[in-house]
Amino acid sequence: MKNGIMRPGHVQIRVLDIDEALEHYCGLLGLIEVDRDDQGRVYLKAWTEVDKYSVILTLADDPGMDFMGFKVTDETSLEKLHRDLLDHGVNVDVIPENELVDCGRRLRFISPSGHTFELYVDKKCTGKWGIEELNPEAWPRGLKGMRVQRFDHCLLYGDELDATLDLFVNVLGFYLTEQVLSDDDSRIAQFLSLSNKAHDIAFIFHPEKGRFHHASFHLETWEDILRAADLISMTNTAIDIGPTRHGLTHGKTIYFFDPSGNRNEVFCGGDYSYPDHPPITWKSDQLGKAIFYHDREVNERFLTVLT
Amino acid sequence: MKNGIMRPGHVQIRVLDIDEALEHYCGLLGLIEVDRDDQGRVYLKAWTEVDKYSVILTLADDPGMDFMGFKVTDETSLEKLHRDLLDHGVNVDVIPENELVDCGRRLRFISPSGHTFELYVDKKCTGKWGIEELNPEAWPRGLKGMRVQRFDHCLLYGDELDATLDLFVNVLGFYLTEQVLSDDDSRIAQFLSLSNKAHDIAFIFHPEKGRFHHASFHLETWEDILRAADLISMTNTAIDIGPTRHGLTHGKTIYFFDPSGNRNEVFCGGDYSYPDHPPITWKSDQLGKAIFYHDREVNERFLTVLT
Amino acid sequence: MKNGIMRPGHVQIRVLDIDEALEHYCGLLGLIEVDRDDQGRVYLKAWTEVDKYSVILTLADDPGMDFMGFKVTDETSLEKLHRDLLDHGVNVDVIPENELVDCGRRLRFISPSGHTFELYVDKKCTGKWGIEELNPEAWPRGLKGMRVQRFDHCLLYGDELDATLDLFVNVLGFYLTEQVLSDDDSRIAQFLSLSNKAHDIAFIFHPEKGRFHHASFHLETWEDILRAADLISMTNTAIDIGPTRHGLTHGKTIYFFDPSGNRNEVFCGGDYSYPDHPPITWKSDQLGKAIFYHDREVNERFLTVLT
Amino acid sequence: MKNGIMRPGHVQIRVLDIDEALEHYCGLLGLIEVDRDDQGRVYLKAWTEVDKYSVILTLADDPGMDFMGFKVTDETSLEKLHRDLLDHGVNVDVIPENELVDCGRRLRFISPSGHTFELYVDKKCTGKWGIEELNPEAWPRGLKGMRVQRFDHCLLYGDELDATLDLFVNVLGFYLTEQVLSDDDSRIAQFLSLSNKAHDIAFIFHPEKGRFHHASFHLETWEDILRAADLISMTNTAIDIGPTRHGLTHGKTIYFFDPSGNRNEVFCGGDYSYPDHPPITWKSDQLGKAIFYHDREVNERFLTVLT
Repeated sequence: MKNGIMRPGHVQIRVLDIDEALEHYCGLLGLIEVDRDDQGRVYLKAWTEVDKYSVILTLADDPGMDFMGFKVTDETSLEKLHRDLLDHGVNVDVIPENELVDCGRRLRFISPSGHTFELYVDKKCTGKWGIEELNPEAWPRGLKGMRVQRFDHCLLYGDELDATLDLFVNVLGFYLTEQVLSDDDSRIAQFLSLSNKAHDIAFIFHPEKGRFHHASFHLETWEDILRAADLISMTNTAIDIGPTRHGLTHGKTIYFFDPSGNRNEVFCGGDYSYPDHPPITWKSDQLGKAIFYHDREVNERFLTVLT
Repeated sequence: MKNGIMRPGHVQIRVLDIDEALEHYCGLLGLIEVDRDDQGRVYLKAWTEVDKYSVILTLADDPGMDFMGFKVTDETSLEKLHRDLLDHGVNVDVIPENELVDCGRRLRFISPSGHTFELYVDKKCTGKWGIEELNPEAWPRGLKGMRVQRFDHCLLYGDELDATLDLFVNVLGFYLTEQVLSDDDSRIAQFLSLSNKAHDIAFIFHPEKGRFHHASFHLETWEDILRAADLISMTNTAIDIGPTRHGLTHGKTIYFFDPSGNRNEVFCGGDYSYPDHPPITWKSDQLGKAIFYHDREVNERFLTVLT
Repeated sequence: MKNGIMRPGHVQIRVLDIDEALEHYCGLLGLIEVDRDDQGRVYLKAWTEVDKYSVILTLADDPGMDFMGFKVTDETSLEKLHRDLLDHGVNVDVIPENELVDCGRRLRFISPSGHTFELYVDKKCTGKWGIEELNPEAWPRGLKGMRVQRFDHCLLYGDELDATLDLFVNVLGFYLTEQVLSDDDSRIAQFLSLSNKAHDIAFIFHPEKGRFHHASFHLETWEDILRAADLISMTNTAIDIGPTRHGLTHGKTIYFFDPSGNRNEVFCGGDYSYPDHPPITWKSDQLGKAIFYHDREVNERFLTVLT
Repeated sequence: MKNGIMRPGHVQIRVLDIDEALEHYCGLLGLIEVDRDDQGRVYLKAWTEVDKYSVILTLADDPGMDFMGFKVTDETSLEKLHRDLLDHGVNVDVIPENELVDCGRRLRFISPSGHTFELYVDKKCTGKWGIEELNPEAWPRGLKGMRVQRFDHCLLYGDELDATLDLFVNVLGFYLTEQVLSDDDSRIAQFLSLSNKAHDIAFIFHPEKGRFHHASFHLETWEDILRAADLISMTNTAIDIGPTRHGLTHGKTIYFFDPSGNRNEVFCGGDYSYPDHPPITWKSDQLGKAIFYHDREVNERFLTVLT
């Protein structure tokens, strides 16, 4: 949080059918619908998040991610980030408050990898879902499906990883937690954190800019991953791979697809990190194990199916 | 990490017998002995920590905590913290480098609650125990006992909670995550974080200054808590309470005592937090549930046995 | 199953208020109401049981257990058991079919310990709740509360343990899996099984005949025990002790009370057994550890509160 | 246990290199070597088993299973089983006592599916490994690798499933718990139990007689399955598939290979059964889900790699 950016705050995902998407994101993942706007966008939150929403679904002709937003601690930090982005040569659009409901002014920019990001300070704080503010219970009764705890991070595919790393580290204040290096030591994957988490955002090299690999949601336990896997099967949801463990971050995970073809991950556990930790390096000859620790081989679908 | 303080980095614990203490902290908890010094102090680390050590055992006539140290990101931040402490009217002792082996210069001060704290930037980075730096496995084989992952936080008993909060929040850059308020709204417990963690340090009101309630170590799962409980029983170690869950932080926990009478906790899970989260409040008429969520009554020993 | 007795099939529990009891057994434990009869009795099942019901609640002025029934494989075995009971000097009442709804003829007798037992062959098989017979899913969606899997066993307090053991082993075909012996080697606890389970019925010595200690329900995992503990707290249900592990059977457990004061257990795991396994023995000087493996001391309430 | 057969008691597995096999079965699975004989066979046990051993490794030129043995309660039952086998037209060889060390007389026969089975009453009872008989701890310290709890069952491939079912049910007293039926309702898989377990032996149709698919070992929890998967990866052991869940039995599982190419399973959980339970049926159009509940498609390797 060196420069005041705290965490991933929201992601806007394009879907081909809102009702099917809601059945998936609410009925299966367990997100909670909290609002809609006059563009037809639907706002969802995960139960442990104190802000009003973290996922925005928008109807479109092709799936993918429109943008990912990060929450900043205060206006002074946001203004400094604005100046630093401009000084770094990044074009910044200012989106007025309430363009997303109950959200303050957002600074929007495109990374060298071709993805759209936003920074903002204010979003309506509605508290954890189903839990009293005073003497709170451990968890709410009435959650559905996988009962995901929070929107956690995105993994994005694109090019210009070095310039993207430079932007995220030197301007935005992220730090590099983990990387995959090819034989010639060029970086083909980079995981970046703002906090103790193993990643708040991750990029994998891909010759095409701006592709979306997955949005990831946090579960508490390996038992929850099993339950998620069971629910994926019971609902005839398309699975990608899992339950398994990653080598990178050592998180426990399962991947599957929403009805529009966007990949989702639910995961738990894995390594924590701090800014003084030396980045962890995987070599590309161990890419299979880096990605899927148990199978130790790359699932072609995981590398090529993008939105 | 607003002012550059990252995390709890070490705690020095007084024990009455070093060999018995090592059997407890290494054989039972699974810390690893890494060094000794000419004062007879023994240095221990938990396996996920990248720095050389986090627990220092020192022989004494009475048990307790000598001091707790926090690691700072860089010298500039440390110097600013030094000035800010002095400006706040806090007396600061500078402990020269290598007074603790392989540790840089430490700034030492006493909180209004009567506890000794330290800030430092440098400690030898030896990497995670038993894990390669390149293509790291998920965990090392050969760990002992409970296989604790890291020294996580301390809970301290003392008075002047308001002045202590002021120091930790306004000078050191912690934020308040959770509190217990009495009927007259005076704060009788305060939990403070530097990061995503529910607490990096906690204080409970007690009329006597400088008392030590427990040092806490992190485990990964509720299964690990059960295993810890089994090991406590198999080794005839004095148990305090657990396995159970806290209301405060909702962490899953078990408490027990080292052979000198110092209380230890091993815990997992519980809430995460961010600086913009409203502090969670428990009222003292729910103190039993706040402390032990399942039993909903205070264990007298938990409140009164201190070192 | 040597003499054809397969398993505990039902238990009739006396409660002081049917609606409160249903809120407890259905809302909290997750049993499912399947029928009522003209005596006002309510029939409940756990979801994995294939027979129509396993718990019968009946309104009464004092709590406790009316009787516990065991299911027998076939009529020939039942008739032989009838003759063997009479030969053993046991008085047997024949309860006509449908006295319990959809249940065949039951043979009823009283053990030397003063408890009423039944043997029967037929009960309507309605299949697992919420699961298709063909290509069954792993578990049903829509379960409530603790989602208990089955009525598992009862623990009963009474005298004449030797004569009771003789009846259960030599006439009914149970075998002794575990026992607690006092200093003079008299048996003060005996656990008996029909199958691989550590116990299908257990008796603890008590000078008064016919007392009910608890009915126990099976959960799948230690995570489920935690969830049960959380739900006990959220519903302000009276807890006895746990989550913890037993020394006897090594099962993981939590105890609590229904609104009428009857004790319930939910548990998981623990040892399996076979008829050729030597009985496991605990000595009474280790009674604390035998009962509560972690605390290693007897909870007075556990020994004295009976219905 | 209707006809006195209690459980799978041992399996003799052919391996191409004894030392490599021991590194696998002891170092990775956590079986314990207990004896060797003058044929060079090595005897192993799992820690919860009370009898001296359950796995016998024998050096051979090709991998596979030599025989699987079941333990019988008493001599009278064994003699009746002998007569019943002969009456059923099965050829029975009597293997003298101590041909396997510390094992009594064994009756050996071949099933219509082409597999060799044995029945025996006596094997030296040495008690659980690492646990005292009196006041036993929950588990022993010092176990290695996966710490498997017991040899649980075998899955065998062969033809003549109907005749094999007839033998196991009508002569040996097993009961059918689960089956896969093809479109014309011929049985292509049959799971058979002696007890509460979902299977003590299973057969899948294959045109060639006497093939060995896997020997399976029991773990306690889904966490243990993850740990097993991690260890498989850390030791560069060939994995087949998992961690996942089966549709059949709903057990949680992972498959891998010993250095000679024999498949092993470690699993936990899943359904329990009783003789009065209607057999569960899967249709072959759902074979993918029946075998691997999450992926819902057949892994070619799982169906074709046999020893």
